[in-house]
Amino acid sequence: MRLPVSGRKIVVLRMGHRPKRDVRITTHVALVARAFGAHAMILADVVDEKLLETMRKVIESWGGRYFKLVCGIPWRKAIEEWKRLGGCVVHLTMYGENIEGSDVLERIRRDPRDVMVVVGASKVPKEVYFLADYNVAIGNQPHSEVSALAVFLDRFFQGKELIREFEDARLKIIPCPRGKKVVRLR
Amino acid sequence: MRLPVSGRKIVVLRMGHRPKRDVRITTHVALVARAFGAHAMILADVVDEKLLETMRKVIESWGGRYFKLVCGIPWRKAIEEWKRLGGCVVHLTMYGENIEGSDVLERIRRDPRDVMVVVGASKVPKEVYFLADYNVAIGNQPHSEVSALAVFLDRFFQGKELIREFEDARLKIIPCPRGKKVVRLR
Repeated sequence: MRLPVSGRKIVVLRMGHRPKRDVRITTHVALVARAFGAHAMILADVVDEKLLETMRKVIESWGGRYFKLVCGIPWRKAIEEWKRLGGCVVHLTMYGENIEGSDVLERIRRDPRDVMVVVGASKVPKEVYFLADYNVAIGNQPHSEVSALAVFLDRFFQGKELIREFEDARLKIIPCPRGKKVVRLR
Repeated sequence: MRLPVSGRKIVVLRMGHRPKRDVRITTHVALVARAFGAHAMILADVVDEKLLETMRKVIESWGGRYFKLVCGIPWRKAIEEWKRLGGCVVHLTMYGENIEGSDVLERIRRDPRDVMVVVGASKVPKEVYFLADYNVAIGNQPHSEVSALAVFLDRFFQGKELIREFEDARLKIIPCPRGKKVVRLR
């Protein structure tokens, strides 16, 4: 199963991670990045060994070795380097253009560049709103960077990311209406 | 802005909440429930004062007083009572029928009953898979109850929940491509 917006790389940049407080939320962000079709995630500014270990285990069990998780790059450097290499930057924020009822997603889909999706934790520096090519709101209500990222990618890939096969998986779920069916592939 | 699947009540049941460990994830689940058009959330088995306080403040600022958060009902009782009152139960689990590439969402949308959406934390008791009318996977990969709930509701309401107005709001965001625009309504 190939993703429909083919040829474009999607990288998630997670900013503002506070090592103890955000560890579980950032893990959920990384799991969403992988499960919803991103190719990589950058955790800005800090190194989180526990997150690296969790994602290593998930990939070992459920596949997707292409998915890279990189820690510790300063956020400004990550964004500027991405732009220098010709990518565009989508910042998810409740203050941005609403993905529903505006043409912002259409414009992003027509833009041929690779996409960096920026998600913050608490307060995001004002500069990010101006470095970004698109500030996109998944609705203009407070919710979560986890849900914002998932809904953005689900709409970007038009749902097709959810039936993607992950190579090198050791385990695979057979969808079923009751109970759990898991097959061991190797 | 009325939601398209009108007349049907949507209640989220959050199970398996571990008071310290899950406090932020459960807060994100509650924020998603409100922002994505649910009418209420039940936090099963435990009372979390901090969560109640956070949601009270969010509703005070951003509106939606109709949204009810109830804590401490035993999960089995909550599900059984919901079914006794004629509602159907949708359990979100990576082992269920995939929302993409199956007709499960169509069946739920055709089902005229009110909907309880069950999201677990760590392990969900096997019984839940059998009490549920529908076990639905938002893809068969591990990610997060926060993202699973958001994508389910986004697809259930066909995106229209994201342009809904919340009554009694004190603050309102004016979507914009750069920076932040917030108006004070009262």
